[in-house]
Amino acid sequence: MPISVADLDTPAVVIDLDIVEANIARAQATLASHGLNNRPHIKTHKIPALAKKQMEAGAVGITCQKLGEVEVMADAGVADDILLTYNVLGDAKTERLAALIRRLKRMAVVLDNEVVARGLSEAGKRHGVNIRFLIECDTGYGRNGVQSPQAALDLAREAMRMPNMQFEGLMTFPTAKPETRLWLERALQLLGGAGIAVPVVSGGGSPALKSCGDFPMLTEYRAGTYIYNDVMQVTAGGATFNDCAMTVRATVVSRPTEDRAVLDAGSKVMTYEQHYAKGFGRIVEYPDARITGFSEEHGMVDLAACAKKPKIGEVVSVIPNHCCVVTNMMDEVIGVRRGVVEAVFPVAARGKVR
Amino acid sequence: MPISVADLDTPAVVIDLDIVEANIARAQATLASHGLNNRPHIKTHKIPALAKKQMEAGAVGITCQKLGEVEVMADAGVADDILLTYNVLGDAKTERLAALIRRLKRMAVVLDNEVVARGLSEAGKRHGVNIRFLIECDTGYGRNGVQSPQAALDLAREAMRMPNMQFEGLMTFPTAKPETRLWLERALQLLGGAGIAVPVVSGGGSPALKSCGDFPMLTEYRAGTYIYNDVMQVTAGGATFNDCAMTVRATVVSRPTEDRAVLDAGSKVMTYEQHYAKGFGRIVEYPDARITGFSEEHGMVDLAACAKKPKIGEVVSVIPNHCCVVTNMMDEVIGVRRGVVEAVFPVAARGKVR
Repeated sequence: MPISVADLDTPAVVIDLDIVEANIARAQATLASHGLNNRPHIKTHKIPALAKKQMEAGAVGITCQKLGEVEVMADAGVADDILLTYNVLGDAKTERLAALIRRLKRMAVVLDNEVVARGLSEAGKRHGVNIRFLIECDTGYGRNGVQSPQAALDLAREAMRMPNMQFEGLMTFPTAKPETRLWLERALQLLGGAGIAVPVVSGGGSPALKSCGDFPMLTEYRAGTYIYNDVMQVTAGGATFNDCAMTVRATVVSRPTEDRAVLDAGSKVMTYEQHYAKGFGRIVEYPDARITGFSEEHGMVDLAACAKKPKIGEVVSVIPNHCCVVTNMMDEVIGVRRGVVEAVFPVAARGKVR
Repeated sequence: MPISVADLDTPAVVIDLDIVEANIARAQATLASHGLNNRPHIKTHKIPALAKKQMEAGAVGITCQKLGEVEVMADAGVADDILLTYNVLGDAKTERLAALIRRLKRMAVVLDNEVVARGLSEAGKRHGVNIRFLIECDTGYGRNGVQSPQAALDLAREAMRMPNMQFEGLMTFPTAKPETRLWLERALQLLGGAGIAVPVVSGGGSPALKSCGDFPMLTEYRAGTYIYNDVMQVTAGGATFNDCAMTVRATVVSRPTEDRAVLDAGSKVMTYEQHYAKGFGRIVEYPDARITGFSEEHGMVDLAACAKKPKIGEVVSVIPNHCCVVTNMMDEVIGVRRGVVEAVFPVAARGKVR
């Protein structure tokens, strides 16, 4: 007996697999048309079966954000080429990294400072393995990364002089602004002038995917959100609501006033992430409704602008602001196709904070 | 060999058990001095062992927010008297509720509308059990709840007429404003006038705990946050930073600029909840530092106001804005006493969204 999405107890996080597959194919085609290697970031879904779909569509490998994510994906045999875009620091973690390097065909990390480089080199020596590394570059977004092209060259040189360290290239996030292009061009000039080969230049970001052709120096691209899409991605012009594969099924459990509805999903499912979205998610069936806030288990909805209003007991579908963080709230998500449940995916790499 | 808190790999969520026990004792003493039953809300910790400490200190029972939390606490034998402060709606959930009613000495729920009352009554009939219920009252905070004392009376009467329904009283959250007192007084007058006994009047909220004596009609009190405390609770005047038992241990993994540090804990540990706090958590060792934002795995710190600044590799302790939501991000938290690890607590009721 097929189970309809309408029969799911709520709250439930549902993934439309037709949309997922279309999103995977579209990103792969875009990157291929620019000759870019696709290295999707699995933090968005944290599910080996979906990473496998990305690999089957043509990805060269995957990107992870914590060692624990790499371990889950390696255990599942998803890919033998994994990039960890994180400063790996401390013996507990460099030991785990060394073990992964032994298991995988290619395992690379990023670094943006000498302390991290030294720790990696020591681990490489201890275990007799080479540590492949990219220099993380802050090309204008004020996150991690060396602050100038010259600093990228200096750190690359310094780390290359350390035992068991193998320079692989440059990494930045996101690749959206003209300044980023100029920054990378200058860094490549400096590295070239110093006779240092740069096999990999790794860019990323789902909203910027459509303009990846503006960055001709890139060799590979890391995007995560595109597999599901969300209100942020739509707001940034990277997708339409029809491309959003993830919805939170939630029941109206209270209608305290004419203009107020309360959903049985709050920040414990959808989180308080807002970024440049206006409310806290879009209700598909009531696009004029506004989710004004959350408690942990309740979503507060303002219905003032709605001609038709939902009844108590009605189930609605909410496109969340930020799909990646919703993934991390759930032990499992439900894969559906044309309204019928096809698979229950344990979120195997959920909660891997280390 | 004792394990020092300094030896923990990061990020890690650490609970100081001396502070936890002092917080439990203080709240119990405050409520006892006002003759109020203590019914702590376990959503803050989601850990049976800590709920047991609250019971041993004198709590009459516990409060949960989802059926899944009740099930975990009942399985662990924490309490035989549990209040679920949630509208339980739909057969999948009322079946689970009926099973819990059979297992526990007293299991009560709240409701704020007739649709929920009808579903509960039907489940009670099906299973031959009585459903003990409280009417949830919106006494001024615009969340769930009936909108007036008259509506409370009307709904109580209506639900009491349904088979297998047993009225137990009124519930509201939080009990902080003078309007709330007047609202409850009027509702009790109306219920009394109708000859309806009101054995329970349940108030709550950790920040308001200190003024619980201003609400003489209360019979019991539900508070959650007080067991750990957090920046919100300190900002609201309900605790000092010395009363904060939960800290997130995080390592500085990058220092991109003189004034910027990056922690290895982001929204996936601390969440984006801000409420009336100014930043995104307080760094104990660097109180002049400001956590300005998160990505999922990184915390961005502005050090401009700090005379002394942390080095790469240094571990800091962050008091989060909202401890309850941090609990839900973690598979386990570490109990420490005087800097030594005493217990690793699985967060058994984490992620119970249904």
